[in-house]
Amino acid sequence: MNYYKARTDDIVHTIRSLIRSCQLDSLPNYEGVDMTLIREVVSGAATHAENFFAPINKDADSEGCRLENGEVLVPSSFSQLYKNFAEAGWPSVSCSPEFGGHGLPHLVACAVNENFMAASLSFSMVSLLSQGAISALTKHGDDKLKATYLPKLVSGEWTGTMNLTEAQSGSDLSTVRTSAVKTGEHYLIKGQKIFISWGDHNVAENIIHLVLARVAGATKGNNGLSLFIVPKYLLGKHGELTERNDVHPLSIEEKLGIHGSPTCVLDFGGNSGAIGYLIGEEGRGLSYMFTMMNHARIGVALQGVGVSECAYQQALAYAKERVQGGTEIINYPDVRRMLMQMRALTEAARVVCYYAYAQLDLSESEEGSDGDARLALVTPLVKTWSTEIANEVTSMGIQVHGGVGFIEEFGAAQLYRDARILAIYEGTNGIQALDFTKRKVIRDSGVEIKRMIHMIRTDAYKFQRRESDISDMGLNLMEAVMVLQAATDWILANKDDDEFIESVAFDFVMLTGYVCAGSLLCDKAMLSSTMPSKSEDVDYLSANISVAGFYINKILPRVHAHWIAIRSGSDDVMALSVGQF
Amino acid sequence: MNYYKARTDDIVHTIRSLIRSCQLDSLPNYEGVDMTLIREVVSGAATHAENFFAPINKDADSEGCRLENGEVLVPSSFSQLYKNFAEAGWPSVSCSPEFGGHGLPHLVACAVNENFMAASLSFSMVSLLSQGAISALTKHGDDKLKATYLPKLVSGEWTGTMNLTEAQSGSDLSTVRTSAVKTGEHYLIKGQKIFISWGDHNVAENIIHLVLARVAGATKGNNGLSLFIVPKYLLGKHGELTERNDVHPLSIEEKLGIHGSPTCVLDFGGNSGAIGYLIGEEGRGLSYMFTMMNHARIGVALQGVGVSECAYQQALAYAKERVQGGTEIINYPDVRRMLMQMRALTEAARVVCYYAYAQLDLSESEEGSDGDARLALVTPLVKTWSTEIANEVTSMGIQVHGGVGFIEEFGAAQLYRDARILAIYEGTNGIQALDFTKRKVIRDSGVEIKRMIHMIRTDAYKFQRRESDISDMGLNLMEAVMVLQAATDWILANKDDDEFIESVAFDFVMLTGYVCAGSLLCDKAMLSSTMPSKSEDVDYLSANISVAGFYINKILPRVHAHWIAIRSGSDDVMALSVGQF
Repeated sequence: MNYYKARTDDIVHTIRSLIRSCQLDSLPNYEGVDMTLIREVVSGAATHAENFFAPINKDADSEGCRLENGEVLVPSSFSQLYKNFAEAGWPSVSCSPEFGGHGLPHLVACAVNENFMAASLSFSMVSLLSQGAISALTKHGDDKLKATYLPKLVSGEWTGTMNLTEAQSGSDLSTVRTSAVKTGEHYLIKGQKIFISWGDHNVAENIIHLVLARVAGATKGNNGLSLFIVPKYLLGKHGELTERNDVHPLSIEEKLGIHGSPTCVLDFGGNSGAIGYLIGEEGRGLSYMFTMMNHARIGVALQGVGVSECAYQQALAYAKERVQGGTEIINYPDVRRMLMQMRALTEAARVVCYYAYAQLDLSESEEGSDGDARLALVTPLVKTWSTEIANEVTSMGIQVHGGVGFIEEFGAAQLYRDARILAIYEGTNGIQALDFTKRKVIRDSGVEIKRMIHMIRTDAYKFQRRESDISDMGLNLMEAVMVLQAATDWILANKDDDEFIESVAFDFVMLTGYVCAGSLLCDKAMLSSTMPSKSEDVDYLSANISVAGFYINKILPRVHAHWIAIRSGSDDVMALSVGQF
Repeated sequence: MNYYKARTDDIVHTIRSLIRSCQLDSLPNYEGVDMTLIREVVSGAATHAENFFAPINKDADSEGCRLENGEVLVPSSFSQLYKNFAEAGWPSVSCSPEFGGHGLPHLVACAVNENFMAASLSFSMVSLLSQGAISALTKHGDDKLKATYLPKLVSGEWTGTMNLTEAQSGSDLSTVRTSAVKTGEHYLIKGQKIFISWGDHNVAENIIHLVLARVAGATKGNNGLSLFIVPKYLLGKHGELTERNDVHPLSIEEKLGIHGSPTCVLDFGGNSGAIGYLIGEEGRGLSYMFTMMNHARIGVALQGVGVSECAYQQALAYAKERVQGGTEIINYPDVRRMLMQMRALTEAARVVCYYAYAQLDLSESEEGSDGDARLALVTPLVKTWSTEIANEVTSMGIQVHGGVGFIEEFGAAQLYRDARILAIYEGTNGIQALDFTKRKVIRDSGVEIKRMIHMIRTDAYKFQRRESDISDMGLNLMEAVMVLQAATDWILANKDDDEFIESVAFDFVMLTGYVCAGSLLCDKAMLSSTMPSKSEDVDYLSANISVAGFYINKILPRVHAHWIAIRSGSDDVMALSVGQF
């Protein structure tokens, strides 16, 4: 029951709506990019993901990964699939043509990626991390490093990893112990990293590890951290692979889900010391790593969209087929409620994630543009919101299946298990909520979020003046954005009360997510309502308005619960002493 | 990391609070039952569950069940554990002394059961089903059947099962095909049943299957169903085991969770025909089975409490131990928020479930008492609400653990997997929501729910007149119960609009659950506030008030979102045609 059929209609319409509302078509990397090209690229990825990845997703889960003779072996189907995936150019859609990429907008690349994430979350992780490594290297590496590593990463011949966490150092990276000692042109790296996704594998010929380590003598804390490239195989003069570097997988984790994605404990330099090359300057490693982390955070949000979409489609297929009481269960309103909720939440998560990628395009087009601040604001927002949604949608996917939802054979359970990592990796959602509230809202005194609120209010007012469906949505959206405004004011007024801020940050980021998604869905629905009735897909466009209506009327009201929780503050949260627990 | 320590303090206080508010102490089966005895029984079960079941829960999950040579083998530790469990008398706490039971109140038995459910959900299922079989047989069996089967079921020497579902017949039982042909004194049963928990196993010497089947020539639909006892081993004249009956496990399911609980496809009569004995009259099988199902439904709700409690404790232990940023993570408000939410939701689920058992005691004390209608009302309510809560709490349990929450070794993932069945088995929560709204609220024109609302309003008014903490809670509770009243009126006013009712039933049952739990928590908190300050556990009692406060201020506001969703009706739910999906 591995069912996945790309929602190309909704994906393309979402892109169309964002290009219009974010005025992207004047950006340099949108030159020559029209809807025909976009549809072609997205359809190509869809076909590839549907035909080659969806069919193996369940078997890859059952087979899992193993460590044999010091090497990690991923599910057997992955090697050939990876080769074809790279050869088709899917890893490099938005990479710079200078290094062999296609130079398409991030907004288009994200649509491509969503398809592969939906078809196999486990597999998609290798590409997400490689793309993150490419973005960090592109931004912070010197010309030599770029020339040496980027072409093969862009082509997909090599893959990238992200090495932050150590046993004692999770959410708090200031205690990282992995050390680096300068030895001639390079550094010798020693230490152990844990939770390294695709830290070792057998699908590509080399692995480029980006490693956070502390140079001997550097200060304690975050400012003592530097970022290094540590390749699995060292390179010869002409870039050819030579000897194995001293980095080895010690073990792989037995996890709840994404069994096809190996999670490694990596040992650096346990023998002779692992050879590493400094990226940028010493002591600035964490800020460089944030380029990769922020990239990965939006990517994880997008994984939430993909796995939700797949869960929705599985549930839908089952509901159309399963007969009880003399009719297919899709005909029962309670089942319909679940399907609509899954669909509305998935489309909502899609439009906010794509919005983040649109901001990435804006931010890269001109340094210091508005896009930068907006991108910084929405990164933790979409990471948190979309992944919470993914947990809800995949759980509902099980529920629609009834008893067989709990049976592994039917596939709904796998998506529920797989999705559960998303709220955790690349920074737990609790950490994202603090990042959002403290660094992105309070630090600039609310300037950027107020801009966003103003924009949503203007839109809501505009929607209210449209015809009936859209007008009702505008009214409810206006009510919700007023709630967001009140909550923002409340947060800013209490910004010095750390206990308060940290107690309510999660409610605040969720509230903001609901409102942003609602606004973007309305915008998309309005575009649907204005498109010529003879256009491509009348059925889709009218469904699109209905789905937005469901979201606005049935889901958006959750903002009230979050707002009351925020207003009630930290007293109840901190009421017990540790001893009373 | 299999951590479970019974919350005997909260369990006993919950019972104390309910005995007072439901005026249970005048009931016949409460005679001689004082708080000292209750604490003793609960502590005994706690010690047994903590010492013998919690330690094997993880290994039993890894080992799972297997089918070998036509027999199901459960995890190897279970045989001895089951023997000790039965010998200790835990299966028979509330059973009639006439058949060897202890005759204690259901409210006390539920506290015992919660402990075993918390320590091993997989194991607890065998006992839950046996107790359900006992209750159906006690109520509907004739004297001969009772004398033959009840003593061994009560002693735990034999176990019971519940056979309803067939491949084509899940939520809709009217299409059951298993047939029964009268042959002398007994019937010959033929057919296949699926999803039979503990349908075969090696921990007890006989299994008593309760089987829904259609007597040859009976009408189609639910009224043609009869209920039969089909023992795994037939009995000789003196009740001794003789030959194997023709009932055999064909396969067992590979499931998301509860790997220690075998889920069987059972074949009845594939060879010579399985010998079965009619319970009660032909054609009334479904109504008899409802005795067992209703018993099991409250039991599943209680499993939700148990697994939530265990998840809370695991998360708490981890949060007290894990250091980040120089301090145990329990000291961070965002982690504290999660722990408080887990604790408040668990205590809320406990008090509503125990309330249902209190109604069971009331209902059994006098036929046709108020307890009957209240019990009927709260059965689908607690089944739905507590199991949704269990999904939320076990998910949060993973989140508190961060990265290691996703690693199976740490145990949080197992609870998340195990809990996911609860919203499905014994009737999906969607079906419960329809049962609640249509059969329990609309059918009696809202009489019983309005009684309950009136009671909650009276309580809320009473709370408002107390000292500050309780008074504030009373105010918020009053607001919430007014919302429930409005929603109830809305439901009743639209009772003939089936599409509307079915579209909003789930929101309605959730809303009702939040309010009921809130009211019972406040009542318990008020009792805490009035207990002498020198009493047993001042720390616990003050924490108890704080937890109720957290629930009322942070969680109860969710009623607003549900109410708005109800008010918005069915239009959005049914907006798409099937073809548009």
